[in-house]
Amino acid sequence: MRAVIFDGELRLERQQSMPVVPANEALVKVHMAGICNTDIEITRGYKGFNGILGHEFVGTVVECADAQWVGRRIVGEINAACRTCPTCLRGDDPHCPNRTTVGIYKRAGAMADYISLPIDCLHEVPSDVSDEQAVFTEPLAAALEILQQTHLRPTDRVALVGDGKLGLLIAQVLRLPGCEVTVVGRHPERWDMLHRQGITTCRPEQAEGWYDVVVDVTGNPEGLKTSRRLVRPRGRLVMKSTVAAETQLDLTMLVVDEIQLIGSRCGPFPAALRLLQRGLIETAPLLTATYSLDDALAAFEASRGALKIVLTMS
Amino acid sequence: MRAVIFDGELRLERQQSMPVVPANEALVKVHMAGICNTDIEITRGYKGFNGILGHEFVGTVVECADAQWVGRRIVGEINAACRTCPTCLRGDDPHCPNRTTVGIYKRAGAMADYISLPIDCLHEVPSDVSDEQAVFTEPLAAALEILQQTHLRPTDRVALVGDGKLGLLIAQVLRLPGCEVTVVGRHPERWDMLHRQGITTCRPEQAEGWYDVVVDVTGNPEGLKTSRRLVRPRGRLVMKSTVAAETQLDLTMLVVDEIQLIGSRCGPFPAALRLLQRGLIETAPLLTATYSLDDALAAFEASRGALKIVLTMS
Repeated sequence: MRAVIFDGELRLERQQSMPVVPANEALVKVHMAGICNTDIEITRGYKGFNGILGHEFVGTVVECADAQWVGRRIVGEINAACRTCPTCLRGDDPHCPNRTTVGIYKRAGAMADYISLPIDCLHEVPSDVSDEQAVFTEPLAAALEILQQTHLRPTDRVALVGDGKLGLLIAQVLRLPGCEVTVVGRHPERWDMLHRQGITTCRPEQAEGWYDVVVDVTGNPEGLKTSRRLVRPRGRLVMKSTVAAETQLDLTMLVVDEIQLIGSRCGPFPAALRLLQRGLIETAPLLTATYSLDDALAAFEASRGALKIVLTMS
Repeated sequence: MRAVIFDGELRLERQQSMPVVPANEALVKVHMAGICNTDIEITRGYKGFNGILGHEFVGTVVECADAQWVGRRIVGEINAACRTCPTCLRGDDPHCPNRTTVGIYKRAGAMADYISLPIDCLHEVPSDVSDEQAVFTEPLAAALEILQQTHLRPTDRVALVGDGKLGLLIAQVLRLPGCEVTVVGRHPERWDMLHRQGITTCRPEQAEGWYDVVVDVTGNPEGLKTSRRLVRPRGRLVMKSTVAAETQLDLTMLVVDEIQLIGSRCGPFPAALRLLQRGLIETAPLLTATYSLDDALAAFEASRGALKIVLTMS
């Protein structure tokens, strides 16, 4: 089969052997896989991952010990947990210390014709959600994790710093409880969708005042600094991207201002699918282009600075 | 009057002029004032404060426009807020951007025979709470701020790193909801009270495993590192002391592990007084020594590495 591999360099392998499928896993024929910033970071050495990339995808189960899954269209959670350790047993399976992570850590990714996935990770895609929508389930779930972690009140003033592909999903989620939402970004050409949804926008240098909740999704120290500046005393600062370097934060002022800093990663798939099905999240404006898997290298190239680029396996 | 002043050096002034008392303030004759680590930090340049030190105290109102306060024994909140700005109006007056802070920022402290305080800051001390207990109200309120900020469940496993004077108050508060509490410290000679209260203790190098909630009260980077190590994924790390230097925290791992970092400062006085009155907090074991205000310099000297040293004005 074909597969996009990173092993020091990024390349398209045409003779990749088919996945070996353990008894508790399912073989999935991949329809589409999205390119995420994490994929790009991996090609720069993040996590030291070598193997098949890709963790945002939609596909169809073609083989499974549990026959009821065969033929179903699915999306897959990316954390394959042991389901037996104390962390898993208290419901924190995305943090299982024994986990492997699809296309990120010790597990082959989805930028390939086929992928093997634990049955526990499968979620059926409702028939009225298209592949083009479903491929956003994983990042949308990550956006929803914010609502899972902290109580967003309809009266909260919320700022989101960063208008990249994940940012534009998060903005749409933050607006759902009825909050005032301001997106602080550097890409006015992406703001039409936000304005249509009643979200305010501005550039970092225009952002002022205090917000109850600030979400940083810039992934760079300068963005984090802007985010910190906008949090009111006793406010919450949600960190939604893995900042590459060890960043300095003035911890003294965090104590004095009683700021709550919330690290946020993967989120609930079923809720993400419900929102897609309910039509509450726009994905079409986020999809910049679709490339054939055969053109994966060009797709990665096009992905830098773009919104979502998706690979199709057909 | 007498006053302990820091103006580049620490000294006892015997000819300090009496406080000027604005209409909305009360003149308080101070009985006792405690020496806090913040006072010691101020003598090292923290906050650039110059003036009368001291923000933990108990006294009696001797003059007040509101006559009902005269003659009452009181403790005083340290943040003098404007009560008119948006921050104050939403109930976050300890964070008022226009605030002055007793003995810390733009306001004379309590290590003196008299202090002037806003009436809004006064809390009457119940008759069955002694001066020696009441002088702990401010740090106990700061300890209680943790319960104010985050939900401590009876089933939570809680670690407190740091067994200094504030740490020993915090430990006693953390045990109140019924949690398992472990204090990680370097002063076994202080642990008797903790053991009596059903709190487990160990040295940093013995501390292992994961805790749901970890409170750092060490105020040093090494202690913070220990604290971070003990927080489970999706756990909470409460930072309870102003770390002097800009400390490095691995923000990437904070995101990956979805840690919640909670800066914590001043807390609710009425609840602290209720706990003292209910006999739920021991203060006697924390009181190392009492010095006359006349011996304030020796008291400061003795305070380094000790538990609470209190100055008496009589």
